Amino acid sequence: MLNKVLENAKKKEKEYLRELFHLLSIPSVSTLPEHHQDIHKAASWLAEHMEEVGLENIQIFETKGHPIICGDWMHAKNMATVLIYGHYDVQPPDPLDEWLSNPFGPQVRNNNIYARGANDNKGQLFIHLKSVDSFMETVGKLPVNIKFILEGEEECGSDNLEDFITKNKKFLEADFALVSDTPSAAVDQPTLIYGLRGILYTEITIQTAEHDLHSGEYGGAVENPVHVLSKIIARLHDKNRRVTIPGFYKDVADSTGEERKMFKKIGDAQKLREHSGATRLVSEKGFTPSEAKRIRPTLEVNGIWGGFTAEGVKTVLPYKASAKISMRLVPNQDPGKIEKDFEAYLRRLTPKTAKLSFKSYHSSNSVVVEREGKAMKAAVAALRETFGREPLLDREGGSIPVVETFSRVLGIQTVLMGFGLPDDNLHAPNEKFSLEMFRKGIETSIRFLSGIGSTN
Amino acid sequence: MLNKVLENAKKKEKEYLRELFHLLSIPSVSTLPEHHQDIHKAASWLAEHMEEVGLENIQIFETKGHPIICGDWMHAKNMATVLIYGHYDVQPPDPLDEWLSNPFGPQVRNNNIYARGANDNKGQLFIHLKSVDSFMETVGKLPVNIKFILEGEEECGSDNLEDFITKNKKFLEADFALVSDTPSAAVDQPTLIYGLRGILYTEITIQTAEHDLHSGEYGGAVENPVHVLSKIIARLHDKNRRVTIPGFYKDVADSTGEERKMFKKIGDAQKLREHSGATRLVSEKGFTPSEAKRIRPTLEVNGIWGGFTAEGVKTVLPYKASAKISMRLVPNQDPGKIEKDFEAYLRRLTPKTAKLSFKSYHSSNSVVVEREGKAMKAAVAALRETFGREPLLDREGGSIPVVETFSRVLGIQTVLMGFGLPDDNLHAPNEKFSLEMFRKGIETSIRFLSGIGSTN
Repeated sequence: MLNKVLENAKKKEKEYLRELFHLLSIPSVSTLPEHHQDIHKAASWLAEHMEEVGLENIQIFETKGHPIICGDWMHAKNMATVLIYGHYDVQPPDPLDEWLSNPFGPQVRNNNIYARGANDNKGQLFIHLKSVDSFMETVGKLPVNIKFILEGEEECGSDNLEDFITKNKKFLEADFALVSDTPSAAVDQPTLIYGLRGILYTEITIQTAEHDLHSGEYGGAVENPVHVLSKIIARLHDKNRRVTIPGFYKDVADSTGEERKMFKKIGDAQKLREHSGATRLVSEKGFTPSEAKRIRPTLEVNGIWGGFTAEGVKTVLPYKASAKISMRLVPNQDPGKIEKDFEAYLRRLTPKTAKLSFKSYHSSNSVVVEREGKAMKAAVAALRETFGREPLLDREGGSIPVVETFSRVLGIQTVLMGFGLPDDNLHAPNEKFSLEMFRKGIETSIRFLSGIGSTN
Repeated sequence: MLNKVLENAKKKEKEYLRELFHLLSIPSVSTLPEHHQDIHKAASWLAEHMEEVGLENIQIFETKGHPIICGDWMHAKNMATVLIYGHYDVQPPDPLDEWLSNPFGPQVRNNNIYARGANDNKGQLFIHLKSVDSFMETVGKLPVNIKFILEGEEECGSDNLEDFITKNKKFLEADFALVSDTPSAAVDQPTLIYGLRGILYTEITIQTAEHDLHSGEYGGAVENPVHVLSKIIARLHDKNRRVTIPGFYKDVADSTGEERKMFKKIGDAQKLREHSGATRLVSEKGFTPSEAKRIRPTLEVNGIWGGFTAEGVKTVLPYKASAKISMRLVPNQDPGKIEKDFEAYLRRLTPKTAKLSFKSYHSSNSVVVEREGKAMKAAVAALRETFGREPLLDREGGSIPVVETFSRVLGIQTVLMGFGLPDDNLHAPNEKFSLEMFRKGIETSIRFLSGIGSTN
């Protein structure tokens, strides 16, 4: 039976790609108001497509933000239920001029699919829809019960997801969750992620006057907000590259020696250098770069702007300057507490000549899931079978807040089985998804669902 | 005769304003390529208008950049020749959403003309064209010889002006120059500027990777260029608000005690606060804010940008960040030497994890002109007569490079007799020009030309 399902998926690859390209061509950018319509277009398309592959009870739930789509197939009596999560919203495509092809005109080059969302997360969520498709088409049923939950606000903080999950606990009941939104270490090295960093995303604005001023008339007499903001940012790290927010490291859980040894073995410094193009890596004192991005909290300025930023010359003394600043958090840091500490610290760093405005966008806790257990073992087996190699167990620098919500609200653990590659340019120009990983992803998903079904 | 000329100007005010509004409605922004056509439109309109008021030998000289317009009236035998300079290009209007009316749809509100260029410099250069107009219309001749030189690149560094002046020395020969591009201390306090700061305008870019990265995947392992840039900017001033570029103050000419006493008497701190909206002023240690902007060199960031700067959230680790940084220079600082010192200093401040790109836009020397002399005395008399008050002699924080060029290349001094007001929002939204100052400007120009003529 399994072979029939796998073979069918192989045969239908061209059709699968055609469908995925349709989804990728909808610019469902969740952070930009001008794309609200596209978000709804993507949601409708997906709901229809879920029906086509044989899922049932498809519903588009409106929220205060973007819709959440659910659907299920619950006819595998006495079998486990898998809750599959994905998101159909994507990051903004800018800077547009650095893309080699239209971010919303998907293209295959060098055996990669290039498009915004090719990997994150349209390509990855599609894998499981196609796995379901292949089961239904060949054997007319699934080996397990499945529930899908697809949201449209992952890239803007999933503001309405936790509320939805809390209000629909019964409806979303499952034995475990499955999320494909993480990378593999390499095309021949499957990877299961068991830990994610949390996040706290903020924006600060420094204002020193009421309007832009002539830099000749006022320069030297009125405070420059860019100077103030730069001084504040310069003070957020000390010379050991540690974050200087008071109490920032107080609750940080130390990693075990076993874990740190494991990360040393992974040793992805070379890869980090190659994929970023950075000539030298950096890290908090006492930790390697590979460790730092996995188990240490960090603070990054994601954007800065103020004054005249167009081509040419304007002799202006700006009246305000802003920065988006986010932190990645680890167990057991509390984003709420850190947000308060950060704001208080910023107020302390702001001189009397300036006014600080502080805004918090969203936050989530870090999460670490069990490395043993039935679902994890089935995932290991499916990956081993497909890739012919033992999967790596790793922790990830990114944040997938829903994993922590599933754990806290639904009481279930999540299998993080992703098929992206480290150089897929997530959130950056020329995002891509490897065709080989797309194929292997579908194969793994089929084996995994089959494996869960047979061990019940 | 003088009275007839003055009365004619009063009578024709409405017509003058209609003409000025036509010029102001042409968006001749010199720094933005999309306005090249408008620059030529403004130049053509002005050339025609110069002919209409009775000037002769009108020529539009093409340069490598924007055209220079010349015209003269040379029939006052044995009389002095005045070279009147102005510029018809304007600053970009952004941020557009802070304008209360269309920057290129001039409007009168509260006895002010609101438009980009209303003061700087279309309104001010128009004063002298209307003064000529009134002489020609009433007495059919001018009391002195006049040459006009109007350029279109003042707001982008006057790249081709010095070359033009050097090549046309004979053609531009004059006894002194007259420039109206400076402010009056108040509507009832006429002002003559005898000193201007020089300028050095640069742009720096810090790059740490080859493309934008995911802040979760790479945060903590790859250097953030915004952090690097912020640290550099934070180090450009010390705690006494002195610029830290090595040797920056070495050649600075100290002001005389008499001058500093004069500036203390001017005491425009209150005005600086009111017009900027800054709650507190700042200044280099040892100098008041009023002194600092007149006689001390300063360094300001005019703009900064990097990473994600749109609305909402993007978890990106930027790969580069830039800033426009300009300095205002005083006698006897050498912009060329300071540019070299600045670049070397920046290279020293840039860590090995980052790459620095340095670009210099333009520069000019500071200039201080004689406070005695025939032209200056005629200017004092014309202002006294028109305003009923002794004019203030002052130094200015801004830069008008042509004044230094006139001195060095043509060997003539410049009378800086301006009619702007300190709150005219030059280079900022809602630029304005007081109707009363426009009127008094024309009256003063008529008296001044008449005065020069009679003292020959």
